[in-house]
Amino acid sequence: MKKLSPKTGLSPGSLVFVGHKKTDKTAIDIMDFNPTELKELRTDNLDDFFLLKDTSDISWIDIKGVHNTQMISQIGEHFQIHPLVLEDIMNTRQRPKIDFYDDYIFAVMKMISWNDKKKSIETEQISLIIGHHYVLSFQEKEDDIFDPLRERIRKGKGRIRSMGSDYLAYAMLDVTVDNYFLVLEGIGEYMELLEEKVLQKPDKEILKEIYVLKRENLMLRKAVWPLREVNAQLERTESTIVKKKTRPFLRDLYDHTIQVIDTVETNRDMTSGLLELYLSTLSNKTNEVMKVLTIIATIFIPLTFIVGIYGMNFDNMPELHWPWAYFAVLGIMAIIALGMLWYFRRRKWL
Amino acid sequence: MKKLSPKTGLSPGSLVFVGHKKTDKTAIDIMDFNPTELKELRTDNLDDFFLLKDTSDISWIDIKGVHNTQMISQIGEHFQIHPLVLEDIMNTRQRPKIDFYDDYIFAVMKMISWNDKKKSIETEQISLIIGHHYVLSFQEKEDDIFDPLRERIRKGKGRIRSMGSDYLAYAMLDVTVDNYFLVLEGIGEYMELLEEKVLQKPDKEILKEIYVLKRENLMLRKAVWPLREVNAQLERTESTIVKKKTRPFLRDLYDHTIQVIDTVETNRDMTSGLLELYLSTLSNKTNEVMKVLTIIATIFIPLTFIVGIYGMNFDNMPELHWPWAYFAVLGIMAIIALGMLWYFRRRKWL
Amino acid sequence: MKKLSPKTGLSPGSLVFVGHKKTDKTAIDIMDFNPTELKELRTDNLDDFFLLKDTSDISWIDIKGVHNTQMISQIGEHFQIHPLVLEDIMNTRQRPKIDFYDDYIFAVMKMISWNDKKKSIETEQISLIIGHHYVLSFQEKEDDIFDPLRERIRKGKGRIRSMGSDYLAYAMLDVTVDNYFLVLEGIGEYMELLEEKVLQKPDKEILKEIYVLKRENLMLRKAVWPLREVNAQLERTESTIVKKKTRPFLRDLYDHTIQVIDTVETNRDMTSGLLELYLSTLSNKTNEVMKVLTIIATIFIPLTFIVGIYGMNFDNMPELHWPWAYFAVLGIMAIIALGMLWYFRRRKWL
Amino acid sequence: MKKLSPKTGLSPGSLVFVGHKKTDKTAIDIMDFNPTELKELRTDNLDDFFLLKDTSDISWIDIKGVHNTQMISQIGEHFQIHPLVLEDIMNTRQRPKIDFYDDYIFAVMKMISWNDKKKSIETEQISLIIGHHYVLSFQEKEDDIFDPLRERIRKGKGRIRSMGSDYLAYAMLDVTVDNYFLVLEGIGEYMELLEEKVLQKPDKEILKEIYVLKRENLMLRKAVWPLREVNAQLERTESTIVKKKTRPFLRDLYDHTIQVIDTVETNRDMTSGLLELYLSTLSNKTNEVMKVLTIIATIFIPLTFIVGIYGMNFDNMPELHWPWAYFAVLGIMAIIALGMLWYFRRRKWL
Amino acid sequence: MKKLSPKTGLSPGSLVFVGHKKTDKTAIDIMDFNPTELKELRTDNLDDFFLLKDTSDISWIDIKGVHNTQMISQIGEHFQIHPLVLEDIMNTRQRPKIDFYDDYIFAVMKMISWNDKKKSIETEQISLIIGHHYVLSFQEKEDDIFDPLRERIRKGKGRIRSMGSDYLAYAMLDVTVDNYFLVLEGIGEYMELLEEKVLQKPDKEILKEIYVLKRENLMLRKAVWPLREVNAQLERTESTIVKKKTRPFLRDLYDHTIQVIDTVETNRDMTSGLLELYLSTLSNKTNEVMKVLTIIATIFIPLTFIVGIYGMNFDNMPELHWPWAYFAVLGIMAIIALGMLWYFRRRKWL
Repeated sequence: MKKLSPKTGLSPGSLVFVGHKKTDKTAIDIMDFNPTELKELRTDNLDDFFLLKDTSDISWIDIKGVHNTQMISQIGEHFQIHPLVLEDIMNTRQRPKIDFYDDYIFAVMKMISWNDKKKSIETEQISLIIGHHYVLSFQEKEDDIFDPLRERIRKGKGRIRSMGSDYLAYAMLDVTVDNYFLVLEGIGEYMELLEEKVLQKPDKEILKEIYVLKRENLMLRKAVWPLREVNAQLERTESTIVKKKTRPFLRDLYDHTIQVIDTVETNRDMTSGLLELYLSTLSNKTNEVMKVLTIIATIFIPLTFIVGIYGMNFDNMPELHWPWAYFAVLGIMAIIALGMLWYFRRRKWL
Repeated sequence: MKKLSPKTGLSPGSLVFVGHKKTDKTAIDIMDFNPTELKELRTDNLDDFFLLKDTSDISWIDIKGVHNTQMISQIGEHFQIHPLVLEDIMNTRQRPKIDFYDDYIFAVMKMISWNDKKKSIETEQISLIIGHHYVLSFQEKEDDIFDPLRERIRKGKGRIRSMGSDYLAYAMLDVTVDNYFLVLEGIGEYMELLEEKVLQKPDKEILKEIYVLKRENLMLRKAVWPLREVNAQLERTESTIVKKKTRPFLRDLYDHTIQVIDTVETNRDMTSGLLELYLSTLSNKTNEVMKVLTIIATIFIPLTFIVGIYGMNFDNMPELHWPWAYFAVLGIMAIIALGMLWYFRRRKWL
Repeated sequence: MKKLSPKTGLSPGSLVFVGHKKTDKTAIDIMDFNPTELKELRTDNLDDFFLLKDTSDISWIDIKGVHNTQMISQIGEHFQIHPLVLEDIMNTRQRPKIDFYDDYIFAVMKMISWNDKKKSIETEQISLIIGHHYVLSFQEKEDDIFDPLRERIRKGKGRIRSMGSDYLAYAMLDVTVDNYFLVLEGIGEYMELLEEKVLQKPDKEILKEIYVLKRENLMLRKAVWPLREVNAQLERTESTIVKKKTRPFLRDLYDHTIQVIDTVETNRDMTSGLLELYLSTLSNKTNEVMKVLTIIATIFIPLTFIVGIYGMNFDNMPELHWPWAYFAVLGIMAIIALGMLWYFRRRKWL
Repeated sequence: MKKLSPKTGLSPGSLVFVGHKKTDKTAIDIMDFNPTELKELRTDNLDDFFLLKDTSDISWIDIKGVHNTQMISQIGEHFQIHPLVLEDIMNTRQRPKIDFYDDYIFAVMKMISWNDKKKSIETEQISLIIGHHYVLSFQEKEDDIFDPLRERIRKGKGRIRSMGSDYLAYAMLDVTVDNYFLVLEGIGEYMELLEEKVLQKPDKEILKEIYVLKRENLMLRKAVWPLREVNAQLERTESTIVKKKTRPFLRDLYDHTIQVIDTVETNRDMTSGLLELYLSTLSNKTNEVMKVLTIIATIFIPLTFIVGIYGMNFDNMPELHWPWAYFAVLGIMAIIALGMLWYFRRRKWL
Repeated sequence: MKKLSPKTGLSPGSLVFVGHKKTDKTAIDIMDFNPTELKELRTDNLDDFFLLKDTSDISWIDIKGVHNTQMISQIGEHFQIHPLVLEDIMNTRQRPKIDFYDDYIFAVMKMISWNDKKKSIETEQISLIIGHHYVLSFQEKEDDIFDPLRERIRKGKGRIRSMGSDYLAYAMLDVTVDNYFLVLEGIGEYMELLEEKVLQKPDKEILKEIYVLKRENLMLRKAVWPLREVNAQLERTESTIVKKKTRPFLRDLYDHTIQVIDTVETNRDMTSGLLELYLSTLSNKTNEVMKVLTIIATIFIPLTFIVGIYGMNFDNMPELHWPWAYFAVLGIMAIIALGMLWYFRRRKWL
C-alpha cells in the first residue's frame, strides 16, 4: 500500500520507479529466432539489441530490473513507446491491465508465488509490450519462471518457433497463469492444515493465521480479477498483432483465468467458513466451561450453607445434641448432591 | 485443489494426465446406429472404430479412462482434434466449459454423485466432442450413468435413433443434469436431518457437519454455475451441428440447469440459516446455564454469610444467648430465600 | 426437494407425474364464449371439448389434476403440444418459466397460499397453454382461485368477453399475482407478531419461528423471481398471440410482480434484522444476569471471608475478647457493602 | 404491508381505494397559466375545470384525496385516461413507476417526510399525469409541499410560466426529491445521536432504536430505488411531451436521485456499523464484568478456604495453640492476596 | 449530511451556497498561455479576465471560494453557463458527476486529504468547466494542490503548454486522483497500526477507532465510485473538446481511478476483518477469564465445603477426636486439589 506517493505532482509520463527495489543489477536477455535459426544474447549494452528490431525474426527482449530510468527511457525511445506506458512499467504498484496502441499492445500482470515458510504471497510485476515482430518483457528481478519457455524455444519444441510474437506473449501469460495454480495449491494445503487444527486443537494462534489467510486471499483476488479482463480483451481484440491461429490458445488462457478466479472465490468463502467454525468452537467451549462451573457451584454452595448452619454458635440449637444428627446431616447432603446430579443429567448437562 | 501443478512449464497442448486416476483399465464402447440399424462394439483396438467415422450413421464412441496418453493422442489425430482440446480432456480439474470449433463442439462437464455414507459429493469429469456424425465421450471410470441411454438406443425408444449427433449429446447432458437432482435430493434429506438435530438435541458434532455441508455446497456450486453458461451457449450457437429440431430440448435442459442452480443457492442460504440457528441455540443455552448459576449463587451466598456471622467466636455476641435466636435466624433466611425466588420470578428468570 | 428422481434415465418427453398428488379426481371445466354467447361444460370425456377447438370463440379449458398420464397425453395429441411441454406440465417441481412455440405459448407459475395456522406457505403449480383461440390451464387440485374470474366471464363484466385468449391468460396471471399480495400480508402480520414478541418477551421458541420464517421467505423468493422473467418475456414477446391492446395490462402485471419481489426482499432483510435483534436482546440479558451474579458475589464473598476469620479457633486472637469487637466488625462489613454498592452505581451497573 | 387485498378477484381496472384514508375531504386546485396570465380556482365541481382542457395554456389540476371513486372515474373519462392508470392512482400502495401512453405520461412516486418526534418516516403517494397542455396531480391529503411552487407560478419567478407541462411536472418531481434530502438530514441527525449514545452510555433501548432505524432505511430504500428508474426513463423518453429544453433539468433531477440513493445506502452500512459497535461494546462490558467477578472470586475463595481450615473443630490441631499463629495466617493471606493482584496486573486484567 | 435543506422550495437554478464555508476571501488566479507565452494574474475584478475569453490561448481561470453568489453569477453570465451548472458549483454537497453541454463540459469531483492527527478524511469540492479555449476551476478554499501543476506551466515542462484545454483539465483531474493515493497510504498506515494493536494489546478504544475507520472508508467510497463514471464518460465522449491525443492520458486516469476503487474495496474488507479479529480476540479472552474463574472455584469450593463440615458443632462427631484426623483431612484435600488440576490439564484448560 505504501509509497505510492513519489509521483504526486510530477508531469504524467515522468519516469520514476515506484515500489521496493528487488535487485540492484539490471540485465537484458535477448532471443531472436525463426523456425530454423536462434540467436541468444545477454547484454547491458542497449545498442546490441537495437539492431534486432527490424528483422523479420521474432525477438524476445527480456529486461530484468525496471528501476533503471535511463535504460527504460532509451528502450522507450527506440521502440517509440508512449511515455505513459514507460511510466506504468516503472510503477510496480500497477493494476493488471491491457492497452492497445497502433503498433503494439501493452499488458501488465502480476507474477505471484507462494512462500510456504512465511505462508504469504509474494508479488512481482511483469509488463509486456507486444509488437509485430518483437516482445519486450519487463521483470522486477532476475530469478526466472520463463526458463522452461526459453528451453522450449532452444529445443524448438512445440509451436513456439513457428508462430508469431502473439504466440510468444501468450506463452508467457500462460506460464504466469499456470504459476497461479501452484500458489492456489499452496494456499489450499495451508487451508487444509488450518481446518484440521480448528477441528482438532484450536488455539489462539489460529485466529491470527485465519486473519492472515484472509488478507492473502484479498491480495490474490486483487491480482487475478483484473487479469480476467486483460485476457478477455486480448482474445477479442481486433488488433492485427493477434492472429487467428493464436485465438484458441487465448481462449484457453481465459478459461484458466476464470478457473483461478473461481478457486480464489471458493477459498474466500471457505476462509470465512473456517473463522465461523473456530468461533463456534470457541462458543462451545465457553459453554462447556460454564457448565462445569455451574455444576460444581450448584452442588456445593447449598451444601456449604448447610454445614455453615451447624457451625453457628447459638446456645440453643437442639439438633446439635441429637446423637445421630451429624450422620443424618451428612446423609441429607449426599441426597441433595445426588438429586442435583440427577437433575443435571436430565437436562443433558452431564 | 491439489496436484494442479504437473503441467507447469510444459508447452500448451502437451498431453499430461492431471487428477486422481480412478481406474487402471481403459475401454472403448462404440454404438453405431441409424433409425433402422445398430452396431455395438467393445474394443481396445483403435483401428476398429476408425473405420466408422465416415459413415452417415451416428456413432457414439465412449472412452472410459482418460489417463492413457497414447490412446487419447491417437484418437485426437484421427478425428483432427485441436491439441488444446486433448489437453483439456486429460486434465480432470477442468472447469465446465464449451468451445466451438469449425468441425466439432467440445464440452466439459462434471458428473456428480452423492455418497450418502460419507455425506459427501463425488465428482467425475465428462468431456464430449460432438461432430456432425459422431459423439466422442470421455469418462474417468467405467461405472456408467449412461446405461439407461444405451438401453434406449438399443430398444429404439424415443427419438434418439432418428435424430442426429446433437440430440445424442443433448441426451447425455440431460442424463447428467438429471443426476444433479438426485444429488440435491441427497443433500436435501441430509439438511432436514441436521435441521431436526439442531432443533431437538444440538451437540458438538453438528458444527463439523454444518461446516462440511457448507463445503459440499461450495463444490456443487463450482460445478453447476459454469454448466449454465455451457448450456446457454449450446442453445444459442449458430454452429450447424446443432439442428433447429433439437433446440427446444436444449432450452429445456437450460431450464433444468437453472433450477439446479436455484436449489443450490437456496441450500446455501439454508445452511447459513442452520449455522445461525445452532449458534443462537448455543447462546440460549449459555444464557440458561448462567441463570441457574446466578440463581443458586444469589440465594445461597448471602445465606452463607449470615450463618458465617453466627459462627464467629467473639466473646460478646448477645444474640447467641437468646433462646429463640437460632430459629429466628432460620426464619429470616427462609424469608430472604423466598424473597429472592419471588424477585427472580418477576424478572422472568424462573 | 424430495422425489425429483423418478424421471432419471427416462427419455426426455416421457410423461411421469412428479410431486405429491393433491387430489385423486380429475375434472375438466370448459368455458366457450364470445362477446354475446357463453357455453359452460364440466366433463371427463375428452371428446366433448375436442369439438371446440376450431371455433372462433375463445375456449378456456381448465384441467384439474395433472397426474392422469393418459388424459394429459390425449390433450397433448389433440392440441399438438410438444412432448417436453407435456412433461413439464406433469412435473409439479417445475421452476416458473415461459416458452414460445409457433402456435402457442407455454407458461408455468406457482399459485401460493398462506396457511395461517401452520404459518407456512403452500404451493400449487399452474401451467398455461395459450393458443390463438384457446387457453388450456392445468391445476394440481380442484379448489379454485379462478372462481371470481369465471364469475366475471359469466356476467360479461369487464373486458374479458370481448378480448382474446391473451387477455384471458393475463387475467389468470393477474389473479395469481394478486394472490401473492395476500400471502405477503399474511407473512407481514406474522412478522409484526414476532417483532412484538422479540421486543416484549423473547423466549426460546422465537428462534425456531424466525428460522422457519426465513425458510418460507426463501421458498417465496424461489417462486417469484422467475415469475418476473416470465411476465417480462410475455410483455415483450413478438408472438402474434399477444395483441397490442393487452400489452398495457401485461406491463401492469409486470409492475405488480416487481412489487411482490421488492416486498419479499424487504421481508428477507427484516427477518435478518429480527434475528439480530433477538440475539442482541439475548446478549443483553446474559450481560444483565452476569451483573447480578457479580454484584452479589462481589459484595458477599469478601464479607464471608471476614466472618470466616473470626470463626477461626486460634487460642490467641485478641480481637475476640474486646467487648465491642462484634459490633465493630458488623459495622465495618456494612461500610464495605455500602462502598461496593456505591462503586457499582458509579460504574452504572445498578 | 396490510390491506393489499381488497382488490383480489376484481376485474383489472376496477376502481377501489387501497390504503389508509388520510383525509375525508377532497379538493381540487386549478392553476391555468401562460407567461402573461394566471387563473386560479378551487372547486369541487368537476365541470369547472373540464372547460380548461383545450386551451393552449398550461393547466395544473391538483386533486387532493384519491379515495373518491366517482370523482377519479369522471376525471379519467374526461381526460381519456386508461382504466389501469386510474386503478393505480387509487392504490396508494403502488411502487414508484412511470408509464408512457400515447397522449400522456403517468408517473407514481412517494412523498416522504420525517417525523422527528416518532423518529419515523411518513409516506404519501403522489401520482402525476402529464399531458401536452396539462398536468394532473393526485395527492392523498391536503397539506402541501407544492405551496412554494404555487408561489413561484403566482409571482412569475423562474422559468415556470414560460415553459411547458413537462417543466411543471419536473418542478413537482424536483420538490419531491428535494424533500428527500430533508428526510435524509433528519435521519442523519438521528444517527449521529444514536452514535453518540452508543459510544457514551449504551443502554438497552438503543437496540430497539437501531432496529427501527434499520426498518426506516429499508422503507426509504423501497421508495427511492424505483424513483431512479422513473427519472431515468423520463429523461431518455422519446415522447414529444418532454421537450429538449427540459432535459438538462431532468438530468439534474436524475443526479439528485442518485445522490439520495447513495446516501440511503451509506446510511444502511452505517446503521449496520452502529449495531456492530453496540454489540461489540456489550461484549466488552460482559468481559469486564466477568473480570471483576473473577478477580474478587479468585482472591477471596482461597482465603475463605484457609480461614475455614482453622475454624475446624478437630481436637488435635497444633497450629491453633501457637501464640502467633493467628497473625501468621493473617500475614500469609495478605501475601496470597497481593500475589494474586500482582498476577492479575501482569495479565493486564487490572 | 446536514444542511442540505436551504434550497428546498427554490426555483431550480437558484444560486444558494450549500455547505460549510471554508474561507471568507475569494480570489481568482488566471493563467493565460500558449507554447511560447504565459500571462499570470491574480484579481478580484471580474472585468480583468473577461477580456481573455476570446483569444486562441488557453486560459485557466481558478476561482477560490464558491460562496460569493454575485461573482459566480457574473462568471456564469459571461461564459454563458447553464444556471443548473452554477447551482451545482455552489452546492458543495454535490456527488461527483460530469455533464456534457454543447460548448463546454462540466465536471464535479472531490479533493480528498487525510488528516493524520484526527485520523479522518477532509473533503473539498472542485468543479471544472472545460471550454474549447478555457478551463474554469472552482475550489472551496485557497490552499492549493494545483501548485505543482502551475509550476509545470510556468517552466513549460511536459506537454502542458502545447496541448489544449482538455489536457489542462486532465492534468487537474490527474493531480486530484494522485492525491487519493496519498490518502490511501495514510489510511493504509493507520490500518497497519490498528492491526498491530489488535494483535498485540487490544483495548476498548480500538472499537471506536475501527468504527471510525469504517465510516471514513464509506465516505471515501462515496467520493471515488462516481469518479469512475466521470472519467469513463470523459474518455468515451464524442465532444470535440476532448482531442484524440489526450485520450491515452484519460485512459490512464481511468485506470488509476479503478486502482483507487480496488484499494478502497480491499480496505473495506480488511476493516471488517479487523473487527472480526478484535471480536474473536475478545471472545478468546472472555473464555480465558472464565477458565481461571472456573478452575479456582472448582478447586476451592469443594474444599471449603469439607472444612465447613469439620467446623460444625455437633456433639457427636467421632472424627474430631481422632488424633490424626486433621492431617488426614489436609491430605485428602491436597489429593482432591491435585486430582482436579490433573483433570484440568487433561482437558487442556491449563
